[in-house]
Amino acid sequence: MVSAHVLTLARRPEGMPTAADFSIEGRILDCPPHGFIAEILYASVDPAMRTWISGEDTYRAPVAIGEPMPAIAIGRIVASRADRFPLGAFVRGPFGIASHAASGGEQVAVLPAGSPEALPHHLGVLGISGLSAWFGLTAQGGIKAGDRVLVSGAAGAVGSAAVQLARIAGAEAVGVAGGTDKCAWAAECFGAPVLDYRSGDLAASIKQMMPEGADLIFDNVGGAFLQAALENLAKGARIAVCGGISQYNNDTRHGPSNYLNLVVRRASMHGFLVHDYAAEFTEAVRRLARWHHEGRLVGVVDVEPGLENFAGALAGLFSGTNRGKRLLAPNPELL
Amino acid sequence: MVSAHVLTLARRPEGMPTAADFSIEGRILDCPPHGFIAEILYASVDPAMRTWISGEDTYRAPVAIGEPMPAIAIGRIVASRADRFPLGAFVRGPFGIASHAASGGEQVAVLPAGSPEALPHHLGVLGISGLSAWFGLTAQGGIKAGDRVLVSGAAGAVGSAAVQLARIAGAEAVGVAGGTDKCAWAAECFGAPVLDYRSGDLAASIKQMMPEGADLIFDNVGGAFLQAALENLAKGARIAVCGGISQYNNDTRHGPSNYLNLVVRRASMHGFLVHDYAAEFTEAVRRLARWHHEGRLVGVVDVEPGLENFAGALAGLFSGTNRGKRLLAPNPELL
Repeated sequence: MVSAHVLTLARRPEGMPTAADFSIEGRILDCPPHGFIAEILYASVDPAMRTWISGEDTYRAPVAIGEPMPAIAIGRIVASRADRFPLGAFVRGPFGIASHAASGGEQVAVLPAGSPEALPHHLGVLGISGLSAWFGLTAQGGIKAGDRVLVSGAAGAVGSAAVQLARIAGAEAVGVAGGTDKCAWAAECFGAPVLDYRSGDLAASIKQMMPEGADLIFDNVGGAFLQAALENLAKGARIAVCGGISQYNNDTRHGPSNYLNLVVRRASMHGFLVHDYAAEFTEAVRRLARWHHEGRLVGVVDVEPGLENFAGALAGLFSGTNRGKRLLAPNPELL
Repeated sequence: MVSAHVLTLARRPEGMPTAADFSIEGRILDCPPHGFIAEILYASVDPAMRTWISGEDTYRAPVAIGEPMPAIAIGRIVASRADRFPLGAFVRGPFGIASHAASGGEQVAVLPAGSPEALPHHLGVLGISGLSAWFGLTAQGGIKAGDRVLVSGAAGAVGSAAVQLARIAGAEAVGVAGGTDKCAWAAECFGAPVLDYRSGDLAASIKQMMPEGADLIFDNVGGAFLQAALENLAKGARIAVCGGISQYNNDTRHGPSNYLNLVVRRASMHGFLVHDYAAEFTEAVRRLARWHHEGRLVGVVDVEPGLENFAGALAGLFSGTNRGKRLLAPNPELL
């Protein structure tokens, strides 16, 4: 038996999530018959979580009031009744936002033993973030060498991976992010020019960098970015839509008023969910890990300590306080 | 030498085009050395013309003030200096909105001799309208038997062809049009249910007809239709965007605020221009003509008489006065 703290949804947020939208509850966990209990080291904090708690019907059932907040997380096993989950092993799975989790082993991966520094990347560049970038560019975007690739959220987890993976694929990448300092940092860190959407006319800035337009656009932001991108389509351009972080907090959402440029430029816009490619994850991670090991695919993690800071860590994704992959460390004393 | 009347653009319309936006000018035409002069029987009136005269940069250069109004038209040759264009032959080409046209033969097709009733269909179901429906459903939409296909503008030239071609391809088609009478007429004429977007909640009506959502959406309307369609996507749905007639007269255009349903439903939206498939037109027309001959692909033409009625004929496409393919007859006494 292990005593745990679990973050639950107290009410549906209006606009930006705040601490009052969540509760922290004590639970006593029993180790399941063929499972384990893990102490959580890192939990993934993702923009899509905002849609899960809004009550809308998306690709997953909404989180109910009073329900624990779901999240993919990495933990260390502290109790086990299964040989394949040995004590001390590091595991990744749907453990939620909690100090500890009991698991029967469903959807759990035992992570390779490695340096403590490498561990959090299994939630970032070697996890769903890197995979989202990879399948968006390849399966959805059909990237090929020489393509001009425009990427939003380029200082974030998925966008920064997309910028680097586009370059690895022989394409010319331009990123977009918010704020002078953050853009300069991202350009330095990820090796591609990064335009500041907060400064000046973004459509004109893109046109200056890509006078012939973008062949491939990777978007997880929407809003003003998508509007500006649609003004800069090369003929036959493809837009891989990973998400729309600019819209998740809005009661009244906006679509791109210039979407008919898709007709003019014979372009297409593709929505995708990375989980549809689960059968190909192992092979893709093998590639990502090699490039990461070679230093060509940099992962940056941005760790917020403490369960009580979850709402702020999530809200910060929308105001853009994060650099790289945002994680929550429910037990910061363990790191 | 032939005396002609030619419609030119007098000024850029604001909102709906009116007669005052155009002039009719007298011209004297000489027969070009290897060409012909034709008297125009039918000129195609198309929603896209509204974008050509707005001054915006689209897939073609905007029509300049004072320039003759371009249009695809069908004429009968009344003077010729070329063996392949004999006197009396019927020809289709970019002759413009005019009583007569001189042509060097560029982009001109000599039409098969047929009944007078068959002639105007070469601007409709056997012309660009039918081809737009065909390539939108096949090359863009990847239609297959059993698909649930949702079509906007189902009482118009392209939409009515799309409804019928979807059924020929073994798909289940549902059309959308405006007005109780028009919907009843289109359903009867084209053999598929047609929903009235002016009556009640369109998204709910679609859901009632297609509870599992649409696999393929063919859209030339945009606006409220596209919004409702995006609420009814089957997983992996494809939207072939042919145009957006609801938006062409608007200074402030609107995009679909629920476009992120593309992500939730792993769907895609494809803009296309039928002219990109020109190399495949001959083969496609062969198929369309066979189905037309068999009575499975009905063409309806809606002929407005008189050059002076061009603006009204064009504006009527946006208020929905047309049934089937709208044509202008510059010389109604010849029909």
